[in-house]
Amino acid sequence: MNDVAADKSKGRPKLGPGPAGWQRKWYEVIFEHDTPAGRWFDVWLLVVIVVSVVAVMLESIRYKDAPEAWYDTWRAVEWIITGLFTLEFAARLACVNRPGRYVFSFFGVVDLVSLLPSYLMILIPGAQSLATIRTVRLLRVFRILKLAHHVREGQGWLLALKHTWPKITVFISVIVCTIIILGSVMYLVETDADSGFDNIPVSVYWAIVTMTTVGYGDIAPVTPLGKTIASLVMLLGYAIIIVPTGLFSAEVMKQRALRGTERSCPRCAFNTADDGAQYCSRCGERLGALQPTGTPQADA
Amino acid sequence: MNDVAADKSKGRPKLGPGPAGWQRKWYEVIFEHDTPAGRWFDVWLLVVIVVSVVAVMLESIRYKDAPEAWYDTWRAVEWIITGLFTLEFAARLACVNRPGRYVFSFFGVVDLVSLLPSYLMILIPGAQSLATIRTVRLLRVFRILKLAHHVREGQGWLLALKHTWPKITVFISVIVCTIIILGSVMYLVETDADSGFDNIPVSVYWAIVTMTTVGYGDIAPVTPLGKTIASLVMLLGYAIIIVPTGLFSAEVMKQRALRGTERSCPRCAFNTADDGAQYCSRCGERLGALQPTGTPQADA
Amino acid sequence: MNDVAADKSKGRPKLGPGPAGWQRKWYEVIFEHDTPAGRWFDVWLLVVIVVSVVAVMLESIRYKDAPEAWYDTWRAVEWIITGLFTLEFAARLACVNRPGRYVFSFFGVVDLVSLLPSYLMILIPGAQSLATIRTVRLLRVFRILKLAHHVREGQGWLLALKHTWPKITVFISVIVCTIIILGSVMYLVETDADSGFDNIPVSVYWAIVTMTTVGYGDIAPVTPLGKTIASLVMLLGYAIIIVPTGLFSAEVMKQRALRGTERSCPRCAFNTADDGAQYCSRCGERLGALQPTGTPQADA
Amino acid sequence: MNDVAADKSKGRPKLGPGPAGWQRKWYEVIFEHDTPAGRWFDVWLLVVIVVSVVAVMLESIRYKDAPEAWYDTWRAVEWIITGLFTLEFAARLACVNRPGRYVFSFFGVVDLVSLLPSYLMILIPGAQSLATIRTVRLLRVFRILKLAHHVREGQGWLLALKHTWPKITVFISVIVCTIIILGSVMYLVETDADSGFDNIPVSVYWAIVTMTTVGYGDIAPVTPLGKTIASLVMLLGYAIIIVPTGLFSAEVMKQRALRGTERSCPRCAFNTADDGAQYCSRCGERLGALQPTGTPQADA
Repeated sequence: MNDVAADKSKGRPKLGPGPAGWQRKWYEVIFEHDTPAGRWFDVWLLVVIVVSVVAVMLESIRYKDAPEAWYDTWRAVEWIITGLFTLEFAARLACVNRPGRYVFSFFGVVDLVSLLPSYLMILIPGAQSLATIRTVRLLRVFRILKLAHHVREGQGWLLALKHTWPKITVFISVIVCTIIILGSVMYLVETDADSGFDNIPVSVYWAIVTMTTVGYGDIAPVTPLGKTIASLVMLLGYAIIIVPTGLFSAEVMKQRALRGTERSCPRCAFNTADDGAQYCSRCGERLGALQPTGTPQADA
Repeated sequence: MNDVAADKSKGRPKLGPGPAGWQRKWYEVIFEHDTPAGRWFDVWLLVVIVVSVVAVMLESIRYKDAPEAWYDTWRAVEWIITGLFTLEFAARLACVNRPGRYVFSFFGVVDLVSLLPSYLMILIPGAQSLATIRTVRLLRVFRILKLAHHVREGQGWLLALKHTWPKITVFISVIVCTIIILGSVMYLVETDADSGFDNIPVSVYWAIVTMTTVGYGDIAPVTPLGKTIASLVMLLGYAIIIVPTGLFSAEVMKQRALRGTERSCPRCAFNTADDGAQYCSRCGERLGALQPTGTPQADA
Repeated sequence: MNDVAADKSKGRPKLGPGPAGWQRKWYEVIFEHDTPAGRWFDVWLLVVIVVSVVAVMLESIRYKDAPEAWYDTWRAVEWIITGLFTLEFAARLACVNRPGRYVFSFFGVVDLVSLLPSYLMILIPGAQSLATIRTVRLLRVFRILKLAHHVREGQGWLLALKHTWPKITVFISVIVCTIIILGSVMYLVETDADSGFDNIPVSVYWAIVTMTTVGYGDIAPVTPLGKTIASLVMLLGYAIIIVPTGLFSAEVMKQRALRGTERSCPRCAFNTADDGAQYCSRCGERLGALQPTGTPQADA
Repeated sequence: MNDVAADKSKGRPKLGPGPAGWQRKWYEVIFEHDTPAGRWFDVWLLVVIVVSVVAVMLESIRYKDAPEAWYDTWRAVEWIITGLFTLEFAARLACVNRPGRYVFSFFGVVDLVSLLPSYLMILIPGAQSLATIRTVRLLRVFRILKLAHHVREGQGWLLALKHTWPKITVFISVIVCTIIILGSVMYLVETDADSGFDNIPVSVYWAIVTMTTVGYGDIAPVTPLGKTIASLVMLLGYAIIIVPTGLFSAEVMKQRALRGTERSCPRCAFNTADDGAQYCSRCGERLGALQPTGTPQADA
């Protein structure tokens, strides 16, 4: 299956190759991943993406006091890559049956955003800051990863995450409220100690830094009461991590458990979870074939 | 079901609407969440709460050197919101059948505490610090969340948490004792190194900061022995997180297992969670086929 | 069962009450926890322990520049508590059948160590530092906790921990070696940057601080290469926490699974895990009574 | 089984003892672990390794301003150990049937690398830095650990890790991209605030320090927007740890379930993990009673 189609798998008509033969061929190479040519294309695309991001990162290193040489090197690399991406973008537009839809598909936008900064930086002089935006090119990696074997596996935990999400949402909303209230309390307690708790937003920032056990130390309580409350915040933050972990572990287990339980014994109605079972393990009756995988349950 | 009733669900008579028709109507809108009007009310209440808390937070930003304009803006917002909350509070009192019980219900108190500071700040001059207390308004969010679909789901992990609690309590008491003893040891070791371990409480604070892996760095051991002990404390803190996580994960699994694929015995109505059961384990009656997965019970 | 006996539960003869009637009565009150008097004694003992530890902690606060008043207060409290503990210790010695064995039992030693510092501080002048040791009194709390309902539950995770231990040991030994090697590498890389990596032990200390995600920041890499390696150390430390967590969660689940599986159906040999089952859920045969709980498996 | 063979267990012919009788005897002692002599050898090897690594670490402590005495002590220890390792290496070469293959086996290389630095430090004057490399000797510990009982247990989680790996890989690649993009954003936001975000690589380093909740504090955002984004990074880092944990826990559970209480079919020898199975799910044969729990398989 091609990845753009995956994007569209919400009942809308698929994005496919154009009518002409060369379009179908190009489409296969550029959008699909099943043919050797397609895979070869993906590998090289991946290489170029990584190189381009590394270039962006290195270019930034001496951004302020750049010896021209260093600077120009990465500029050159940048322009070669931009050229390649432009050609690729054109090719994608050329071989697809609905260019408009492609441009406005998720990956279409990403492709465009990967190109624009380089061009804008010529047109608009002071647009150096745009250089950084080019790291969004990394998102293009996912188009390639998408087809890799392990993503199909990955869908299991994505599903589990989806199922756990509502619970985790409640959980997070509780945390957020707790953080804000605790931050306000610390603001009350520490505001006179001049220890960095200058206002509620900053105190909330401190509460997040502490609860997530990051603990920069740029803001830290100095009053005994402040330290006592901080201790509670830490223990709280240390403790609550277990709740979503437990929920998610259990969810993954459930996904696993659901996998394959679609087969009931025609005689004793016992549901087996064993993919390879050929006879009911309860009454010895012969079982039907396993349902086609790819059903939501079987993705776990 | 209305949320105040949920609060009261300990055998005590419910808090319901008053006798008059307008009371019943208002009650439906203000306290219940099933009607479109009720949901509409909830959404707007949520908006106002969030706005009010944001106002409190922003107001605090230049608390010390506030340009009047900025200050007055938030003051105005504050008074509008206080007005709205006052009207709401009055309406709740008016339409409920037991105003007294409502006022002393959890959410009644929260509603009151959300109002008082603003009024007290006029009466008592130097009560600026009360401004912060208004963030408790966030608690009112939970009344609205309460009805959301995912809270019903959430009760699964609440139950799991309740079941794990005793074990986690023992666990925590062990940790607390360990922390205090380790803190004292570090005080003994580092007290002469002038590295911030000035007294046992501070050392205990350090132990908590370290064990929870927050690690501000405002207090850090400098002596070789101190660093060695600190390393043990860190590894300990890093290791022990696994115990409550394991307990809780297992508990969630158990909750799931108990509610996963239940079937009732046609004779004694005993619910079994055993997929393979063919006879009721209570009365020996033969059981029917397994229910289709995806029943509300399976969502727990 | 009395707690000292629990200590001795390695085939050795129990520590019991003396022959005289008053000894048996005292023993019941002091060592056992089943009688109202025994529980009353435990509660008060707990209170005294907590008070004594708080006293030790507060006494330390102005250790250096103590206003006599503050200092004397805690001294007084200290002496009252020491008196009480001395009486208790004498009473334990008096009513037990093997005083020698009690003194050398774990809790006997703890009791003694709780007393000695106070007395030594008179005999030896400069023994102030001993004051801190008194926090070991907290260990006495466990004697009392021991009988609490939730400890019996707790034994489940202790068992799970015991079962996971060998695996976690291998795991830890791998981590330790990794930490030492990584620490040495960082020493090599950062030694010239004067960023605190002065020798291998300190670098290993840094590696521990980083891997456990504590991150004080007192030692931090400054060279690009150092920062790169540090990033790997962090990601490693962040990742490996999942291994023991997974092992332990699974172990707890197993303990849970083992619970109650002692009953086999006399006809079809199906093992049920349902404590309340009265009929085999496979063949409908009547089942025997559940085995007495308190067997190692049932403690999970 | 001998460990080198374990290395070679990829279809290639085993590394075994030489033909002569003394070779077979030596081989048993040096390479195998089943005989008392072999175990005795392992224990002493372990002791020497630990001593040597401790020596390397202590030697580094006063590396810069070393009093000759201290320095010479560790030098002496070092040379004794190097001598022992040289003899051991010679012995291993002598008694093995394929010396070449041994030298290039994983542990052969480790053995060699453990020796070379000491010798190179005489030949090359300024090769002091090589001293640190000697800590790789720790890797030799694993050869000994390899045979320990608990490693065989350990293989359970290794298997689980292997199974979870693909999913965790996708997961990590997503994290890496997120970290790079977030780092770039922070560079954009904080670059003018002179708060340490000097270039993208450094910002990415910060993102890793923050996401893994290490939080040194050497680089921390100062702008309100920077702090807001940082908060999201922290919460994200705090949240995502649950995904691999859940995956791995579930995987360990699965491993356990698959190997937990297996019974073989008397006809087709298929192992079932289903406690309730009464008929083989492969050939329909009737199965015997459940095996007693606590079989080696159940320890996995």
